Amino acid sequence: MNIDYIPGTKLHIRQDRSKFSFGVDAILLSSFAPRGERALDLCTGNGIVLLRLFGLGKIKSGIGIEIQEDVSYCASESVELNELKGNLDILNEDLKDVKTLFQKNSFDLVTANPPYIKHGGGIVNTDENFAMARHELTMTFEDVVSAASHVLCPGGSFSFIHKPERLAELIVCLKSSKLEPKRMRLVQPNSKKAPNMVLIEAKKFGKEGISVLETLNVYGEDGEYTKELLYEYGK
Amino acid sequence: MNIDYIPGTKLHIRQDRSKFSFGVDAILLSSFAPRGERALDLCTGNGIVLLRLFGLGKIKSGIGIEIQEDVSYCASESVELNELKGNLDILNEDLKDVKTLFQKNSFDLVTANPPYIKHGGGIVNTDENFAMARHELTMTFEDVVSAASHVLCPGGSFSFIHKPERLAELIVCLKSSKLEPKRMRLVQPNSKKAPNMVLIEAKKFGKEGISVLETLNVYGEDGEYTKELLYEYGK
Repeated sequence: MNIDYIPGTKLHIRQDRSKFSFGVDAILLSSFAPRGERALDLCTGNGIVLLRLFGLGKIKSGIGIEIQEDVSYCASESVELNELKGNLDILNEDLKDVKTLFQKNSFDLVTANPPYIKHGGGIVNTDENFAMARHELTMTFEDVVSAASHVLCPGGSFSFIHKPERLAELIVCLKSSKLEPKRMRLVQPNSKKAPNMVLIEAKKFGKEGISVLETLNVYGEDGEYTKELLYEYGK
Repeated sequence: MNIDYIPGTKLHIRQDRSKFSFGVDAILLSSFAPRGERALDLCTGNGIVLLRLFGLGKIKSGIGIEIQEDVSYCASESVELNELKGNLDILNEDLKDVKTLFQKNSFDLVTANPPYIKHGGGIVNTDENFAMARHELTMTFEDVVSAASHVLCPGGSFSFIHKPERLAELIVCLKSSKLEPKRMRLVQPNSKKAPNMVLIEAKKFGKEGISVLETLNVYGEDGEYTKELLYEYGK
């Protein structure tokens, strides 16, 4: 187990770098999400998104839900390490049970860095932790959206990161759950490569119309991180 | 009336530069659209997209529909100027009548550069030609999609260009008409500015899953057209 610094904050995170080391996706999502009073982070994993939202001063309190017991335990340890118990909580629960765990309108911000790959698509890693983080083995994107829509107050914000190839499906799913896509940003490895991530913010009962931001390039022509990417890291 | 060269082709177009001079959107759309045997170009205006598709060797024959009589007359003149009567035809018709004009499955390619602005949105230009080209005064995007879905054969392709702020609505509209979004490209003025155009290709009865291409920047940091933009112009 390693203890790593959370970029742009004064917080630290415990993570087994061989398993759940946070990636650029978690950083981009926590930077992209708006401010909120009380956040629910679905598929929280090692808690990086929730911790970073708090560390950036974007939220006052929050709850992270993780279905895998060992992973959720690791997230809880990071909350304790930063002495944030009371502000942040980690629940080892299935997000499909969100409707019984929380009342309607109980959060103004929901975030999710869900598994990207549809059940049946791609080669499933034989390591169970890896597999569940990447493949929709125990849940679908519809389950994530349904949970978000249930807990969000009117005007509340759901921000997530996903794969561009699922964009059309994601948008239809959001809109059918009264979550209106309001902001979107594509992320591409560099200016000559197709995007491999998409950030989306949707608002409960939001008005139609989406603001598509300038595409973010991770690397510049010089092979170094771009200024725009470093900005997302808080540098 | 002026006679202008159509970029990347040997064809010419008649256009009143004060009224309907083709823009970068028409060039990008005709470059983005795939090959087809027989194309229907909705909202054809001065016929630029249809003429360029033919000039690029992408289609064998095609029909353009334009509701404004004077504009459609101008498009017909360009077809004659290039001695393409028999290959290309311009109809002065309302695209809402496409179902009575053409049988189902009668085209394998449909293109559209429709008005971008919703009826009631924005300031309507007092010049009627301008106004109808930019505002949904006589039709809606749903009408365009409905016409495309009617005439396309299974697997046939519908390509269009629109405003990114309407992306979510466009995708839902396409999917509800059995036109599956398969390819998308954002176009931004430069790498630091939010996209102001989006190109989308949808396929009739297509399988779910969209390929999002690298974002196209019109201008580079030096203020000149980018190589990528010049490539779209056939340079």
